[in-house]
Amino acid sequence: MHNLDKLNTADQGAFVGALDGIFENAPWVAERAIAARPFATVADLHGAMMQAVATAGEAEQLGLIRGHPELGSKVARAGAMTAESRREQGSLGLDRLSEAELARFERLNAAHRQRFGFPFIICVRRHTRDSILDNFERRLGNSPEQERIAALQEIGHITRLRLVEAVEGPGKPKTEGRLSTHVLDTVSGKPAAGVRIVLTERGGSAESLLKEAITNADGRTDEPLLAGAPLRIGMYEIAFHIGAYFAAKGIAAAIPPFLDVVPIRFAIAEPEGHYHVPLLASPWSYSTYRGS
Amino acid sequence: MHNLDKLNTADQGAFVGALDGIFENAPWVAERAIAARPFATVADLHGAMMQAVATAGEAEQLGLIRGHPELGSKVARAGAMTAESRREQGSLGLDRLSEAELARFERLNAAHRQRFGFPFIICVRRHTRDSILDNFERRLGNSPEQERIAALQEIGHITRLRLVEAVEGPGKPKTEGRLSTHVLDTVSGKPAAGVRIVLTERGGSAESLLKEAITNADGRTDEPLLAGAPLRIGMYEIAFHIGAYFAAKGIAAAIPPFLDVVPIRFAIAEPEGHYHVPLLASPWSYSTYRGS
Amino acid sequence: MHNLDKLNTADQGAFVGALDGIFENAPWVAERAIAARPFATVADLHGAMMQAVATAGEAEQLGLIRGHPELGSKVARAGAMTAESRREQGSLGLDRLSEAELARFERLNAAHRQRFGFPFIICVRRHTRDSILDNFERRLGNSPEQERIAALQEIGHITRLRLVEAVEGPGKPKTEGRLSTHVLDTVSGKPAAGVRIVLTERGGSAESLLKEAITNADGRTDEPLLAGAPLRIGMYEIAFHIGAYFAAKGIAAAIPPFLDVVPIRFAIAEPEGHYHVPLLASPWSYSTYRGS
Amino acid sequence: MHNLDKLNTADQGAFVGALDGIFENAPWVAERAIAARPFATVADLHGAMMQAVATAGEAEQLGLIRGHPELGSKVARAGAMTAESRREQGSLGLDRLSEAELARFERLNAAHRQRFGFPFIICVRRHTRDSILDNFERRLGNSPEQERIAALQEIGHITRLRLVEAVEGPGKPKTEGRLSTHVLDTVSGKPAAGVRIVLTERGGSAESLLKEAITNADGRTDEPLLAGAPLRIGMYEIAFHIGAYFAAKGIAAAIPPFLDVVPIRFAIAEPEGHYHVPLLASPWSYSTYRGS
Repeated sequence: MHNLDKLNTADQGAFVGALDGIFENAPWVAERAIAARPFATVADLHGAMMQAVATAGEAEQLGLIRGHPELGSKVARAGAMTAESRREQGSLGLDRLSEAELARFERLNAAHRQRFGFPFIICVRRHTRDSILDNFERRLGNSPEQERIAALQEIGHITRLRLVEAVEGPGKPKTEGRLSTHVLDTVSGKPAAGVRIVLTERGGSAESLLKEAITNADGRTDEPLLAGAPLRIGMYEIAFHIGAYFAAKGIAAAIPPFLDVVPIRFAIAEPEGHYHVPLLASPWSYSTYRGS
Repeated sequence: MHNLDKLNTADQGAFVGALDGIFENAPWVAERAIAARPFATVADLHGAMMQAVATAGEAEQLGLIRGHPELGSKVARAGAMTAESRREQGSLGLDRLSEAELARFERLNAAHRQRFGFPFIICVRRHTRDSILDNFERRLGNSPEQERIAALQEIGHITRLRLVEAVEGPGKPKTEGRLSTHVLDTVSGKPAAGVRIVLTERGGSAESLLKEAITNADGRTDEPLLAGAPLRIGMYEIAFHIGAYFAAKGIAAAIPPFLDVVPIRFAIAEPEGHYHVPLLASPWSYSTYRGS
Repeated sequence: MHNLDKLNTADQGAFVGALDGIFENAPWVAERAIAARPFATVADLHGAMMQAVATAGEAEQLGLIRGHPELGSKVARAGAMTAESRREQGSLGLDRLSEAELARFERLNAAHRQRFGFPFIICVRRHTRDSILDNFERRLGNSPEQERIAALQEIGHITRLRLVEAVEGPGKPKTEGRLSTHVLDTVSGKPAAGVRIVLTERGGSAESLLKEAITNADGRTDEPLLAGAPLRIGMYEIAFHIGAYFAAKGIAAAIPPFLDVVPIRFAIAEPEGHYHVPLLASPWSYSTYRGS
Repeated sequence: MHNLDKLNTADQGAFVGALDGIFENAPWVAERAIAARPFATVADLHGAMMQAVATAGEAEQLGLIRGHPELGSKVARAGAMTAESRREQGSLGLDRLSEAELARFERLNAAHRQRFGFPFIICVRRHTRDSILDNFERRLGNSPEQERIAALQEIGHITRLRLVEAVEGPGKPKTEGRLSTHVLDTVSGKPAAGVRIVLTERGGSAESLLKEAITNADGRTDEPLLAGAPLRIGMYEIAFHIGAYFAAKGIAAAIPPFLDVVPIRFAIAEPEGHYHVPLLASPWSYSTYRGS
């Protein structure tokens, strides 16, 4: 972990060395940002580095982009990636794809490289696997200019996350999102305690369990359902087991109860946002909304 | 189809013959009900027949119960059933069970026969397959007295349905349920037209498609989602494709949209009831309730 | 009451005589519409008459407009109005204004006449008194051209209502609106029966009671809250006495109950529309919406 | 302000002197509570004093009750009250009643004194004037035993409030309530900022303005609508000016808008509770609930 104060006064070599790896294979970014010192905040430092990228020539930008590995490719599996890239891709299992998935990524990578001449860049930690594939397909329809800008924006997201983890200091840019919930029992006008809640990610073909929790006396979960990292863009479902809750309270209902497990299915589109997705329920009705 | 007026004046043989098959292998029910003629309504006729059952001795009641076939049994598959029973069981595919399913039914049938000495009776047309299995398991916990009463109640349901289909006349008892929906767009305060709706039955292990529809200008489906028969007790889900609806209206939302396919999962417990399950939705919130 | 069939074949004098009074002091409208006979519907007849107005010269249009009395004026009180105008203005009490109200109308009338050279025309039966005053003020900001068009549109509304009451025949244009409600008890998932409902019009300075009703077994009122006439544009409030309802059902709530009389305040803007304003309530929560 | 630590070690005279006035004209309460020292919390001190009251004889209890002044009486106006009582009654204007109001209180006081032989005691700071009158009428139906217990409970509320203001220390009992709100715009799925909110108390005959606020960027008010004191039991209304909010956002709606000022009318029954009363609204629908 580096320290912003020290970076502000370090000599050029130490400064560039400390930031090595933030912008993959591109020490020139740090070299140019140095002129904007001192940085009051970590966000300012990141801004100065992105400014260096924005004012570089197209050739340098393309060089920066080409310094990134392909996504989910054999090359990636073979290990020819920076440690940061390996870790990021690994978080989605992109280094452990099945042969069929690998083939799909290879096909998309090939199409992208043929059309644009550089690899498809996306900030993996802000996406589910489905969202990556959606973006991959959609961005194949971009013009070369649009795709270069899109790649640079993604490099902005990737490097912001890396910088926040590498540099200690005030004014860190926001890189974490949060998903929370609460359950209100509209029969008693009180928070519903003891409700089982199951959060899953819903991919195109499969579901994966992310979290199980029981609501506390305040009708909330003791910890947010998701926090401490960017939320991955994608589809989710929270299943609220309110049938068991109302049965335990002895509230007369039909057999079987009209509502048992209530699924709320929604998408997350802002990785750094706060999604509050509550359930207001009686045994016969409910409502939900995106709150904050 | 028989006619209530004619049954009211027919001689005893014709009366009993006409009602043959309503109460399985038990002509004595019709023979005793005849004393209560004339019947103002079909419901009265059914009531008189059930009254004959209720006032019969326990031995006669058990005889009536034993006249019914086992559910989903090999015997049933072999065809030794009345035509009515065969048709009713066939409606749930109980005459086409897999070997594993057949084994489960055989096991439950055996347990039931051993405990109570008579077959498990249930009005198949008022249940999904899951609901039948749930009831089968639960009723194994009954006392013999409770189970005899339960069987007679089910015979009441079975014969009511048969009678309504066999006898024309005023005052038919209610045997049909209805499931309907509508979609309200709370952004425009208008019915949501053109929303795709998919109704599925959700069994313990599988889903089956029951109906697909597109909402009309009134935000409703041209026909009820279910009607014209008893609703089968069980779990259902209506999927409302409101993401596509709001996208088509050009209402700005996130990418991907917060709400896309909204699933409303609920149970039907009253086969002859009216279930109105609407969706009131904006791109960011929705509510539902059991209406009527 | 005249008959559309007979009007289609009547000689010109009878035709014009029958429609005398629909367009105030302007027999030429009927005289020109006659060329478009036969009319398949009453709506077509009205359309043809409005077409005659639309294609008349500006001078004739202004003459038509000037043939209408001022609203709430002394002249009106003195009786120099056609019977139709007197009845329409009387429906809002515009013939019985206090001195202060009269002064306000006189002031607005004078301002309007000075600016535009013709009286302010509005279809009184489609407005509350507050809505008339709002429109009066707002339309003083019109250009002369805009105001002439506005006046002709109002004449369209006025004459449509008159024609529907004067001529029998198929295809009457829609002139009636409807306000309805229902109450759903979300604790029991059933319609709330026996709920007292009070509808008031809420004017700028006063409220006036329009209707009181008790919900029936279906949670609705036996008759719509408003029907059989255009709804008057304006502000309304429905007060739902759900505190007493839940208390009578013995549903435990606080003392005093969190919700007692729930007021739903809303505006009607479409006189010929259907406004369905339901209440979905538990003792601790409720929702409402404009349905249809 | 006294200090719990010091009270725990003070000599008896200082202890009793410090707590003089908490229990009106009844130094014996403090004298007996002293045996339970040391008190870990202020709540424990109050508990010990109430325990002394509970275990006193009926005569002593009645003496304690009779030491309190009548509510809203001429005597009270003449000033023969302790400073605490005067301040508490003054907070509701009970020292400034009109002649008619005074007459009503005199009549109730007389009826109460005649029936029970002691004054009507209520913790004024936990009630609106309407709630006091409701309780006054209702408690006249009590048995003498019930009314003595009710009076002692109210003395518990009164003295808890006094003690919390007189003694510094850990573990103060909860004496403050809170009323908060937030507004969610369900069209945009975001907090509604800039919404005017007006809180009024709604008495039987009059309304009084309690607070006006504008929602901030989080859709909340910068400060709770009510806080820092017990909430007064009574009826309230929050008026949400959402018509102006949606108009300012340019969201197309009818003219006049279906929803303009939305009134949410509710009762507070728990003076020490947290009432969160949000509004979730589109231009055509809204919902509210008691949250926490």
